[in-house]
Amino acid sequence: MKSNLPPKGMRDFLPREKKIRKKVLDIILDEYKKSGFLEIETSMIENLENLTTSNSGENTKLIYKILKRGDKFRPTEESTEDELSDLGLRFDLTLPLSRYYSNNRNELPTVFKALQTGYVFRAERPGKGRFRAFMQCDVDIIGNDAYTAEVELISTIYRTLDRIGLKNQIIKINDRRFLKSLIVSSGFAEDVFTDVAISLDKFDKIGVDGVKAELLNKGYDEDKINAVIDMLNEISSKGLIAIENIDANSYDSLNVIIKTVSAAYPQITVEFDPTLVRGMGYYTGTIFEVFHEGLSSAIGGGGRYDDMIEKLSGTSAPACGFSIGYERLVGIVEDMNLIDADDKSVALFYSEEDDFSEVVKTADTLRKDYDSVSPIRKKKKFGKQLSRLKDDGYSYFVEFDKDKIEVKEA
Amino acid sequence: MKSNLPPKGMRDFLPREKKIRKKVLDIILDEYKKSGFLEIETSMIENLENLTTSNSGENTKLIYKILKRGDKFRPTEESTEDELSDLGLRFDLTLPLSRYYSNNRNELPTVFKALQTGYVFRAERPGKGRFRAFMQCDVDIIGNDAYTAEVELISTIYRTLDRIGLKNQIIKINDRRFLKSLIVSSGFAEDVFTDVAISLDKFDKIGVDGVKAELLNKGYDEDKINAVIDMLNEISSKGLIAIENIDANSYDSLNVIIKTVSAAYPQITVEFDPTLVRGMGYYTGTIFEVFHEGLSSAIGGGGRYDDMIEKLSGTSAPACGFSIGYERLVGIVEDMNLIDADDKSVALFYSEEDDFSEVVKTADTLRKDYDSVSPIRKKKKFGKQLSRLKDDGYSYFVEFDKDKIEVKEA
Repeated sequence: MKSNLPPKGMRDFLPREKKIRKKVLDIILDEYKKSGFLEIETSMIENLENLTTSNSGENTKLIYKILKRGDKFRPTEESTEDELSDLGLRFDLTLPLSRYYSNNRNELPTVFKALQTGYVFRAERPGKGRFRAFMQCDVDIIGNDAYTAEVELISTIYRTLDRIGLKNQIIKINDRRFLKSLIVSSGFAEDVFTDVAISLDKFDKIGVDGVKAELLNKGYDEDKINAVIDMLNEISSKGLIAIENIDANSYDSLNVIIKTVSAAYPQITVEFDPTLVRGMGYYTGTIFEVFHEGLSSAIGGGGRYDDMIEKLSGTSAPACGFSIGYERLVGIVEDMNLIDADDKSVALFYSEEDDFSEVVKTADTLRKDYDSVSPIRKKKKFGKQLSRLKDDGYSYFVEFDKDKIEVKEA
Repeated sequence: MKSNLPPKGMRDFLPREKKIRKKVLDIILDEYKKSGFLEIETSMIENLENLTTSNSGENTKLIYKILKRGDKFRPTEESTEDELSDLGLRFDLTLPLSRYYSNNRNELPTVFKALQTGYVFRAERPGKGRFRAFMQCDVDIIGNDAYTAEVELISTIYRTLDRIGLKNQIIKINDRRFLKSLIVSSGFAEDVFTDVAISLDKFDKIGVDGVKAELLNKGYDEDKINAVIDMLNEISSKGLIAIENIDANSYDSLNVIIKTVSAAYPQITVEFDPTLVRGMGYYTGTIFEVFHEGLSSAIGGGGRYDDMIEKLSGTSAPACGFSIGYERLVGIVEDMNLIDADDKSVALFYSEEDDFSEVVKTADTLRKDYDSVSPIRKKKKFGKQLSRLKDDGYSYFVEFDKDKIEVKEA
């Protein structure tokens, strides 16, 4: 073996890290299920053509492609990547979900509330906090075009993060239809909407001057740029009411979502944020992100994508989804020490003279009351062995005695 | 999207299938942990060189190889698969475990009881019950060269399968050292041991005549073949005692394992089976398989592989492991109807006139007592909607009423 490290950007997890990851995932799965989402699973490997023709923007440039095998592998100097490969690793869970829905629609409820967690793979330049293989945790409601879908998603996320220990949540919410009306009414052509919106998304990071410079640099007229920025500033100060005349649909929809969520959960801050854009091109309506007090970037986000399933799979269906940034959430949980990784685990010490079948029976008895019980052979330096117990993750120990079980703290 | 099916040999899972898979996996994880195994995770993608140089026999021919990216992708007519790829999907969990152990040894307990579940990938010809992506569930004890490791593994598997509902388990057990002594003492050269053993493994499937024909066909002397078969027949009828003179180490080791397991779990049948071989070349001592009354093929198997970690990673450590055939087990659970997939799930019906924030509050209240609660908009034909509830997986329903919650059976 040349290297005993995992490949660049990939990770192994030590028992303690894995325990935290598992506990966070278990809470997510449990709360998502409590909210009525049905867990599904899709293949990690997709036919390459499905991935490359998916209009998934940047992600299609980051596909791990799998070599054709056997007779089908016939390289020449002119071979392209796509000629030499037939399969690829998924880069998100949304494309597989669309394919799945289109394939299984008849066996699924009319309103299909899907829950999916799993690894996705992107051949990115790995950096701090960026990985080439990472977990996504998605909930999607397919077949409900009403605002109640958005409210259900926000309710689900709120309860999940609250249970994990993130008590002061802030939901930022906007609507792509309003953004489009705003940009078009500022004089931009409809087909540059996404390009302009992507720059407007950066207010938080590069400020007004930065956004302006970037749009100028992209070749847009200063008049139009000033117009859109002025309007955004005005709307930011006036609040939601200011968009009633710009896009009535967005106004009505945001209004009822914010009112309903605030009435159900007075403890959540739900804020209209006209500068919220989100990166993906496929959103058609509501977009939202969840923040926590004191953390500058979002823990997760989502939105409505009523056209995508049809574009990807030919099956038409309104859809709204949310994805938790699982890797980021695990980082927050570790930094803020939100979840206790310690279990009620017992080291059961035995000596060579002991009848090991009796040791096993004692272990099984202890297993009724403790999370984890491991028989460990006593060493000559038993004191030293005892002193390391806590470091090895044990909270209790027992010295084997056929006639009685005495549990002591480690 | 050209096809909405997953790639050949790969699978998606419907909610009901996924629920069974999850419940089986949860029991496995819980019982493995109760037995003191620590859950770890390794990367699904490995550096290709680690996979191809691993001496993992047939499996190295079944690797899904990932294309080099960017400037590194330079195909010519002479390019080999390995020149055009740098990464590969893992084909088992044992190689990654060895790499992991070698990399993290200093942070792990002296006797490391590792638990790992996850997908592995093999570019096999897919057939009935054979998949190209499938789950493995492994437990391994690294650093314990005593028979207690074998006993701990058998105890763990027994309790896990018992909890899943497989009550009448049969453990078949043998030792590679005895097999080697037997084959060598029948006149075969030491270096053909594995080749001869692989044929002897087929008694169950092709009978004595089949095994004999296969060995003749491989070019071995009829005398030696007759000698080894006669000895196996004799041992089969006489039982364990017959191998005391052939390989004393195997005899002692099998004896103490069988006695200890039988004393701890009188309900398990532990049988010495001199014809048990198991496919993998890396076993060095005990090998065993778990069967269930009435099922002809094993549910899982394992054994001792004291040299492999050193061969793979350069770090020397005795090891013994067991792997459950998860996909097979899920099939058995489905066929025998061992696990109830139904949850306490509630459909909460509301009308358009209802205040949805109150509906959400009622849902949250119900979520304290039920596994899953989903708000569903009432349709005009409510009777028809109600009649479908059970098919959609709901066991209860509630018609929303702000003032009271009345749960009815679906």
